[in-house]
Amino acid sequence: MNKVDIQEKLSLFGDHWNPRIVGELNGQHVKLVKFQGEFVWHKHDQEDELFFVVQGQFRMEFRDSVVELKKNEFLIVPKGVEHRPVAETEVSVMLFEPAATLNTGDATSELTRTHLESL
Amino acid sequence: MNKVDIQEKLSLFGDHWNPRIVGELNGQHVKLVKFQGEFVWHKHDQEDELFFVVQGQFRMEFRDSVVELKKNEFLIVPKGVEHRPVAETEVSVMLFEPAATLNTGDATSELTRTHLESL
Repeated sequence: MNKVDIQEKLSLFGDHWNPRIVGELNGQHVKLVKFQGEFVWHKHDQEDELFFVVQGQFRMEFRDSVVELKKNEFLIVPKGVEHRPVAETEVSVMLFEPAATLNTGDATSELTRTHLESL
Repeated sequence: MNKVDIQEKLSLFGDHWNPRIVGELNGQHVKLVKFQGEFVWHKHDQEDELFFVVQGQFRMEFRDSVVELKKNEFLIVPKGVEHRPVAETEVSVMLFEPAATLNTGDATSELTRTHLESL
């Protein structure tokens, strides 16, 4: 029975848009990821996705609105809703989502990560 | 599309061992709860359960070990494993678990909460 120290896990990587798996339960993954810059527009047809800000801030863009998120805030993006995370400066985010979730959803790009490292 | 501010939600209640629902996704609930003192020994036959410390510290007791948890650390307790949270001082915890999860699992007591408030 091992606990997970978020800050310790975040210290193990520095690249952006490349989620690491740090926990699994009930078919869901807990992931840590660092964002900087603009991601690709995409949606997940089958999965709701939770973004919890551990450090820093970013904005989630939707086709008709924007949500600004900072440390200790989370946002749930429902399945089927197009979104794009944008971070002016580096932000560390914890994700909760089904294990099957692909980071770029329906939008395959050079940012797509099909094999995630477990930390 | 509404974000959730954890600290704002935590300011809305002060009682212990009474989880509030603050998010739902993929059949899972995100809950906030404050612990102080000793809970009851119990297990969840069907649900893994994640405890993430938002503020303070507590220990999770198992029949053969103890895990000490502090801010920014989380622990996943697998289904079927007996556990008991104990907090010497008040701690604020975010839970991530299936919507069907009962707080006292298989151990009905005066601490059992069958109807959780949504904040």
